[in-house]
Amino acid sequence: MNIIARELRESPLLWLLVAVPAVFIVEHLAPGRHTALFVLAVLAIVPLAALLSKATESVAAKTGDAVGGLLNATLGNLTELVIALTALRAGMFDLVKASIAGAIMTNSLFMLGMALLLGGLKYRTQEFNRATARFQSGLLLLAAIALLVPSMIGSSNRPGADAFALDLSIGLSVLLLVAYVLGLLFSLGTHKAEFAGPAHGAADEEEHLWPVAIAGVLLVAVTVVVALVSEIFVESVQYAAIEFGMTPAFVGFIVVAIVGAAAEMMAAFRAARKNRLDMSIGIALGSSSQIALFVAPVLVLLSLFIAPAPMDLRFWPGAVVAVLISMFAVTFVTSNGRSAWYVGVLLLVIYATIAMTLYLMPPSTAG
Amino acid sequence: MNIIARELRESPLLWLLVAVPAVFIVEHLAPGRHTALFVLAVLAIVPLAALLSKATESVAAKTGDAVGGLLNATLGNLTELVIALTALRAGMFDLVKASIAGAIMTNSLFMLGMALLLGGLKYRTQEFNRATARFQSGLLLLAAIALLVPSMIGSSNRPGADAFALDLSIGLSVLLLVAYVLGLLFSLGTHKAEFAGPAHGAADEEEHLWPVAIAGVLLVAVTVVVALVSEIFVESVQYAAIEFGMTPAFVGFIVVAIVGAAAEMMAAFRAARKNRLDMSIGIALGSSSQIALFVAPVLVLLSLFIAPAPMDLRFWPGAVVAVLISMFAVTFVTSNGRSAWYVGVLLLVIYATIAMTLYLMPPSTAG
Amino acid sequence: MNIIARELRESPLLWLLVAVPAVFIVEHLAPGRHTALFVLAVLAIVPLAALLSKATESVAAKTGDAVGGLLNATLGNLTELVIALTALRAGMFDLVKASIAGAIMTNSLFMLGMALLLGGLKYRTQEFNRATARFQSGLLLLAAIALLVPSMIGSSNRPGADAFALDLSIGLSVLLLVAYVLGLLFSLGTHKAEFAGPAHGAADEEEHLWPVAIAGVLLVAVTVVVALVSEIFVESVQYAAIEFGMTPAFVGFIVVAIVGAAAEMMAAFRAARKNRLDMSIGIALGSSSQIALFVAPVLVLLSLFIAPAPMDLRFWPGAVVAVLISMFAVTFVTSNGRSAWYVGVLLLVIYATIAMTLYLMPPSTAG
Repeated sequence: MNIIARELRESPLLWLLVAVPAVFIVEHLAPGRHTALFVLAVLAIVPLAALLSKATESVAAKTGDAVGGLLNATLGNLTELVIALTALRAGMFDLVKASIAGAIMTNSLFMLGMALLLGGLKYRTQEFNRATARFQSGLLLLAAIALLVPSMIGSSNRPGADAFALDLSIGLSVLLLVAYVLGLLFSLGTHKAEFAGPAHGAADEEEHLWPVAIAGVLLVAVTVVVALVSEIFVESVQYAAIEFGMTPAFVGFIVVAIVGAAAEMMAAFRAARKNRLDMSIGIALGSSSQIALFVAPVLVLLSLFIAPAPMDLRFWPGAVVAVLISMFAVTFVTSNGRSAWYVGVLLLVIYATIAMTLYLMPPSTAG
Repeated sequence: MNIIARELRESPLLWLLVAVPAVFIVEHLAPGRHTALFVLAVLAIVPLAALLSKATESVAAKTGDAVGGLLNATLGNLTELVIALTALRAGMFDLVKASIAGAIMTNSLFMLGMALLLGGLKYRTQEFNRATARFQSGLLLLAAIALLVPSMIGSSNRPGADAFALDLSIGLSVLLLVAYVLGLLFSLGTHKAEFAGPAHGAADEEEHLWPVAIAGVLLVAVTVVVALVSEIFVESVQYAAIEFGMTPAFVGFIVVAIVGAAAEMMAAFRAARKNRLDMSIGIALGSSSQIALFVAPVLVLLSLFIAPAPMDLRFWPGAVVAVLISMFAVTFVTSNGRSAWYVGVLLLVIYATIAMTLYLMPPSTAG
Repeated sequence: MNIIARELRESPLLWLLVAVPAVFIVEHLAPGRHTALFVLAVLAIVPLAALLSKATESVAAKTGDAVGGLLNATLGNLTELVIALTALRAGMFDLVKASIAGAIMTNSLFMLGMALLLGGLKYRTQEFNRATARFQSGLLLLAAIALLVPSMIGSSNRPGADAFALDLSIGLSVLLLVAYVLGLLFSLGTHKAEFAGPAHGAADEEEHLWPVAIAGVLLVAVTVVVALVSEIFVESVQYAAIEFGMTPAFVGFIVVAIVGAAAEMMAAFRAARKNRLDMSIGIALGSSSQIALFVAPVLVLLSLFIAPAPMDLRFWPGAVVAVLISMFAVTFVTSNGRSAWYVGVLLLVIYATIAMTLYLMPPSTAG
């Protein structure tokens, strides 16, 4: 109980855990209250994601660098993955794809932009390691390009296009996973020294980690709870969207992406306020790369088994543009090695522009 | 009269002011002579723009850094703004939009390319402050992206598209103006030191400024004259285009943009010949950013009141591509910190390619 | 005969020259064996291209820097040019255009990516001259943009579009050639010192060059043989494509491009294994720029005289995207000044993605 008390003191976010029982109670008593369920599910996912994050780090810290790095790298976006898997099983491919593109965009524009703004409001100018940042943004740029190539080159409405898109998506997914594994070999193996800095999602050094047994049990238990809450979230999200006047595109790109990455955002913002931009950039860009190189191909391959039909990787053209824009903006911003508050503002303005477009867009344009 | 004599000696361009009475006389005596009116209007706008520029600087220099910077920043593209307002009131939205996109492109490709070429022909290699140039090109890149997002993501031909485009354009304009004001706060306020160099459109230090009273009166008077000449220009430009075999797209993108920015071009070229590339880059990129962040949204918002119908920010796809190409080329060129004549040639080749495409394009493709 | 023995020892590739007589014999005896002819033609072109390369260098080395540089610059892609000319004369414009876009993409993604990977497997990190690499990638970026502008801006399906595209392509070709000549004036003339390093396709210093008389005779003779083999290659390639289940797009973009550049690839890979990345980058990027600025416009202008109809420069949209993607990836990778094996992997993944898309694409989408 000591741990719980300390955690609650350190991360006030955890008080939101009261939403977890609440969402199940409401689901049981009033299954039709979609809007209430949606709000409660969002409130519940945020602290659960924080727990998952912390549990992953605690386990990772105890298992040595290589295995730990691997754990962080594969479980770092566990919340996004669980939510997307739930939507995948329900056959909501438009939502899955929108949340993939949205996560890449939100993590790079919103998470990074807000971190630079919050950091910049406290420090006049902030420096960061240009070489690492360039490597990470390069990795992200190339990952995003590879993910989008089929949407950009292969789009066509002629007969045979569906089969082609599916074959291509499966081949591409294998290729992306190979690139991901090689990337782990590179960053955790042959060139570990260059990445010695803060690993993806790494805890602040002052933060207390949990005993590995507790962490391991929590990791499994919380994942199950997240999966259960995700089901309610995915079911209620489209109803709530209508209620709140949000387009499906906005829900997929913005709402799901922000909810899924809430825990990482907290970590990235905290690091920026401590003038540790290298960590903020690492979390934001690493998390985006992971979506493109790991989460997206895993979803495609799993769709062959758990979804009502196989899912391909054809993105709606607007999504392609939005992701590419994010990439170029981030690449540019991080190549400088220096930041000030207005740089964050500019990233946020681009994000706001895209969000506004999605919000106002007449329904059924995107998917 | 001393001032006038000195000005004429210093800026031989001002002799072109004789075109100002000429254009009004021809307009009165032979209102149908569109081609003559067009040529005279162009010849008249060039020296008027130079006067406006000088008057703005003279007032700015006397009013302290912050107010002066603000004046330069808002009135720096006054000529473009007045011409665009005239076209806006006439409901010629295609011309207005083409001149916005054209000004961004012309200022960054032609103005900068020619400055680098002219400077490079005199000096073997020219150095400039990479950090400032990177910041300015980043600002421009992000501003242009924000301006173009609706055209890139939201385009659709379905019902509701018009209302959507208009709502989005108004929301976006407010957002761009907020970004602009925050940018001024940044460059004139919190981070003034970093921008200590030559301000946008700043006069050479040797140049004589005018007494503030004369400058203030001239500022108002010349603006009125520019507005009157613009009316003749806008009326005659389409007739002249047909006469000279130019497509409407070419007129909007190239002719209007060059005429509107003639005064700034002179200043940028002069600075490059004095090996002061920082100033040339500042003028070219600053002026482009200002079009995207200030002139474009102001025109959208004013269209609600002074135009026959509201104007949205949907650009013709070719314009989107041309502006993005300009951005990437400029971003690349300015990230180097060094230039030689061939770099200017390359920018001019891209500009010439775009201009040639617009010139040869069958009419009614673009708007 | 001494020379021949030494050459065969130094370049085992030359044993493939036995394919040269073989291809002519099969063509004579069994003209319908398209697949066999295709394989033999590929095997024959590879060593012939190596000979051409070496002969060009040998002549260039004897004729002084300026003329030698010019020779290397114009004859460096002689194999590609001869293959493309053969296809042009046969009126196979889709193949010609695909091979232009494919060569730019293959040289920058595959040649460079493989060089970085091979070099990186031997050396932990490799350094290269950032300034030169940036200049070269900038040149390539701007050349590719200029080449693609008409496809990006001017596309339209309305009446008059064909005449417009042709006029534009001819004007653009003249412009590109002017830019190319000015570029030679820059790199071989006014700013020679900056390019003092390894010239495009330069031989290793240890390599033995040939006497100029032999080299000159070989240059002419081998070009004729390449032209003859190209004819068989171009004739058989489409049949072989069907036989091997390859789409026409895949053949044009990947097969022709790799065959045409085989000799340069060997040189680029060899240099990377000797930790001379500057040379690898110079070969890969120089060769790509040359395709865009020299080979492509020459083909357009020659099509007016030797092809059944004039060829324009409108590329299939997928080709435009693929080339632009290659440019951004390469620009990013080379702006760093440092490389490790995973950087090569990333370029190869993007290349594999594009190749896979082209391979799986339903026929008749691209051209």
